[in-house]
Amino acid sequence: MKYPSTILNLIECFKKLPGIGEKTAERLALSVLDIDSETIDIFSNSLKDSKTKIKRCTKCNNLSESELCEICKDKNRNNKILCVVEEPKNVILFEKLNIFDGYYHVLDGLISPIDGINPEDLNISSLVDRVKKEKIEEVILALKPSIEGETTSLYISRILEDLNVKISKIAYGIPIGAEIDYVDSLTLEMALENRMDISTNKDS
Amino acid sequence: MKYPSTILNLIECFKKLPGIGEKTAERLALSVLDIDSETIDIFSNSLKDSKTKIKRCTKCNNLSESELCEICKDKNRNNKILCVVEEPKNVILFEKLNIFDGYYHVLDGLISPIDGINPEDLNISSLVDRVKKEKIEEVILALKPSIEGETTSLYISRILEDLNVKISKIAYGIPIGAEIDYVDSLTLEMALENRMDISTNKDS
Repeated sequence: MKYPSTILNLIECFKKLPGIGEKTAERLALSVLDIDSETIDIFSNSLKDSKTKIKRCTKCNNLSESELCEICKDKNRNNKILCVVEEPKNVILFEKLNIFDGYYHVLDGLISPIDGINPEDLNISSLVDRVKKEKIEEVILALKPSIEGETTSLYISRILEDLNVKISKIAYGIPIGAEIDYVDSLTLEMALENRMDISTNKDS
Repeated sequence: MKYPSTILNLIECFKKLPGIGEKTAERLALSVLDIDSETIDIFSNSLKDSKTKIKRCTKCNNLSESELCEICKDKNRNNKILCVVEEPKNVILFEKLNIFDGYYHVLDGLISPIDGINPEDLNISSLVDRVKKEKIEEVILALKPSIEGETTSLYISRILEDLNVKISKIAYGIPIGAEIDYVDSLTLEMALENRMDISTNKDS
């Protein structure tokens, strides 16, 4: 004896989502029975839409339901600065801060030879094209501080070397509010290496 | 700037599931984009089916896609014993053990006056009817050891009192493998109260 096939199907589908095991999938599948029909309709249709409506912006590769994403459509942003990120969700992170008003470029991954991900698998050539065509003045690399992130940052800075564009990298260091004793040694090393001059005596 | 509306809808729907907050919902919604179309179709259709196909068994109130559930349809089980459980998922739990071969009766809740759940809100009258009509010889109450569970067990045992049926309750006590020192006092009290005679000297 098992659950009705509809429930079994739901359990299998929930198990395909990251971080959801057998027990949680069972709990979620059963909880679906308590959700109102209207929400179920939206849920069901949105799942289908995710395969049909969601595309990538032809310019920055961000998630979009039209040819250009909402950010690339916005003419009131600073068109001299590009922020390079790994994934679409990083764009949202920066947008939530409400302090960056340039445009983005989504690589869709990081260079990782062990995983067989090479520069040509990422949206790097389109980045080079944009820097040239859009006369970008600064490219901010906002990639994660891992071997893959550093490799990708290095690769991009080399490939943009001759294009007369400023290339910067977001700061890696001690997170605000953290106890220095508990920060890992690599972060501490980065923080020391990237130290900033704050001397007020400009003659020194 | 926000996510495309399809993603926003998915985030809202995932948030309706138990134990899923804003961050997890966002992660799950984005992960949907990486799932193959076939799975998405099954997922989407199963969600719709959950509202249309899943019914309750007219006999035992278990989840079912037909009038009678798979267990009630099975004629090879012991038709003298009924196991009373709170929810459909409890049926699956017992079935997985593969040691109980009687039939079930799903109450769909427990008596809880504070939450406004009274005996008439549960499938108790149908239980009484079954005990009479199906000439049940034993009713096993397999409800959770909480105030609500105990209240419901007591209520059912009173209401079945005059029907010449044996009423039993699953044992509450120290779980197998647990350290006695770490068991809560209520469980220990239950375990002591429900102690079993294991003396080999039958004359004592």
